[in-house]
Amino acid sequence: MKLTEIGEFGLIGRLTENISYDRSRVIKGVGDDAAVLRAEDGRWVLFTTDMMVEGIHFSFNYCTARQVGKKALASNVSDIFAMGGLPTFAVVSIALPQDAAVDNVVEMYDGMKETAKVYNVNIVGGDTVKTPDRLVVNVALLGEAEPGRVVYRSGARPGNSIFVTGPLGAAAAGLHLLQNPIPDCPPEAAGYCLKAHCEPAPNSSAGRILAGCGASAMEDVSDGLVSEMYQICGASGVGCRIRAADVPIDPRVRAVAGCAGIDPLEWALFGGEDYELVFTAQPQAEEEIRQALDSAGICIRRVGEINPPGEGMSLIMPDGRITALPRGGHDHFKVAPARQRL
Amino acid sequence: MKLTEIGEFGLIGRLTENISYDRSRVIKGVGDDAAVLRAEDGRWVLFTTDMMVEGIHFSFNYCTARQVGKKALASNVSDIFAMGGLPTFAVVSIALPQDAAVDNVVEMYDGMKETAKVYNVNIVGGDTVKTPDRLVVNVALLGEAEPGRVVYRSGARPGNSIFVTGPLGAAAAGLHLLQNPIPDCPPEAAGYCLKAHCEPAPNSSAGRILAGCGASAMEDVSDGLVSEMYQICGASGVGCRIRAADVPIDPRVRAVAGCAGIDPLEWALFGGEDYELVFTAQPQAEEEIRQALDSAGICIRRVGEINPPGEGMSLIMPDGRITALPRGGHDHFKVAPARQRL
Repeated sequence: MKLTEIGEFGLIGRLTENISYDRSRVIKGVGDDAAVLRAEDGRWVLFTTDMMVEGIHFSFNYCTARQVGKKALASNVSDIFAMGGLPTFAVVSIALPQDAAVDNVVEMYDGMKETAKVYNVNIVGGDTVKTPDRLVVNVALLGEAEPGRVVYRSGARPGNSIFVTGPLGAAAAGLHLLQNPIPDCPPEAAGYCLKAHCEPAPNSSAGRILAGCGASAMEDVSDGLVSEMYQICGASGVGCRIRAADVPIDPRVRAVAGCAGIDPLEWALFGGEDYELVFTAQPQAEEEIRQALDSAGICIRRVGEINPPGEGMSLIMPDGRITALPRGGHDHFKVAPARQRL
Repeated sequence: MKLTEIGEFGLIGRLTENISYDRSRVIKGVGDDAAVLRAEDGRWVLFTTDMMVEGIHFSFNYCTARQVGKKALASNVSDIFAMGGLPTFAVVSIALPQDAAVDNVVEMYDGMKETAKVYNVNIVGGDTVKTPDRLVVNVALLGEAEPGRVVYRSGARPGNSIFVTGPLGAAAAGLHLLQNPIPDCPPEAAGYCLKAHCEPAPNSSAGRILAGCGASAMEDVSDGLVSEMYQICGASGVGCRIRAADVPIDPRVRAVAGCAGIDPLEWALFGGEDYELVFTAQPQAEEEIRQALDSAGICIRRVGEINPPGEGMSLIMPDGRITALPRGGHDHFKVAPARQRL
């Protein structure tokens, strides 16, 4: 059987079948944005890793080496935030083609160091190896969380509301622009989307605030809103209903979509790499959450609700039609070409 | 400037220039087998990572997928042991060609799980991504050590003796056999060397015992004895003298070398991937160290001594000639082709 038949999530299921943990130390193993470990003193430690391959997840034709470095660390930082934690220590592995220009590699690493400073991450080690073809960068990141104050994928319950912490689709719009330049696209709108794609900047306080206000499930929107909802609903054993008209889309993304002749909702639902958070919470917690996030300058949007599992996963289109929530999204091996990351 | 001009260690120097740490938390950052971090409760945490690229560090033509998986984890475990610690938690990233056979990937991961069980490691997460060409596997591993009981590269002092924990060169001999089959090679000798290359098995107690008996500097021999001595002497600001005749070489490695028409010393000094430990200690500690390791079934060999820096790094050849210690070894970008890892 080939990977294309089984897909990323199918493969992960096969790989981690029968995996066993020391249950006294491992609070959550495989299957969330980060693992949750119990330190000897009872503190909770988070542990995550992300690999990026040149030509698949980034291209030096589209982003500067510095941006690639920043993004490699930011995607991991976002995973720690999505658990409700704060990042601490990172190690970085890079596989480098023999003809790589040293200055380019140094610039990429400088980008990582810059992002590390922004998020108080210490880069404490790594590995550099050679490869015959394309650059690969892997970051492994530790984080800390207050015991009991971690938000998993699996906590969504019927009746919960579904929220996002910011507008979606900009990173996908930026990627589209890089792959299909539009000469007459308004520069300010294009610049916003390109920056969203090349320099994602996860919010450093939203996740912690949400972990403190009783969010029941949470993910970063790295793989697209719909894909994250499949993760949350799968792990929680629930269904959901998303209202397309309520999914926030920045006017600049709409402007780019208009020039490109594309429905911006496509980007907002399936685009990925927005690094906003999607979370669920009981309706009665909404006011407290809104206030807490508002004081951090974060405006949330309610985009749907969690349903009992029997009701499945559905999407209310802007015209009122109700359809099954299309899978789509960002499965790394099976996804349709149009939605592959770089 | 290209990587081939600057080399691995030159590159690492450039990348980590001006890197800054939170000194209250980072006891040792970049520049040893693992980083050493201070947990909130004062405990010491080790953190390391290693990346392996198909066709560079391993080949499915030479080793089974299970062996590749075992080796990917074992090389990281060895780094934790070489600091005097015990491994705890790992995350695993794999970049997979789209046409990879699922069964092969599962077998590789099973190898990792098997090795994880041997060394009490919990694999708690990871990332799977696609790549157009070759498989890349990255492991990031945490470990624990008793505060103050960590052995760095930088502690070697003039007058210290240099020891290794076991015979060297078998992994390089195994690699040679894989690349240059010798039909009339004695099967038992060949089998020993092939297993050393494909299934390295770091000793789980040597490092901890040495950290408790006052070893002054320590490394695992992943890059070859000479390369490790350059690391230790560079970090410690000292010189050394290695006695080639005292470097332990298994008779089976000598047998393979005889068939191959190669000086086995070449493999023992520069071969790498033996995953024994090389360490330094004051001569008066030797007896205690010997006894402590002996009770764990480990027989050490004294292979030289640390000199003042002015005396440089030298090698006493078996015939008594004294030469400068040749660089050679296992620099991933500059090394001569004959000594590249697979």
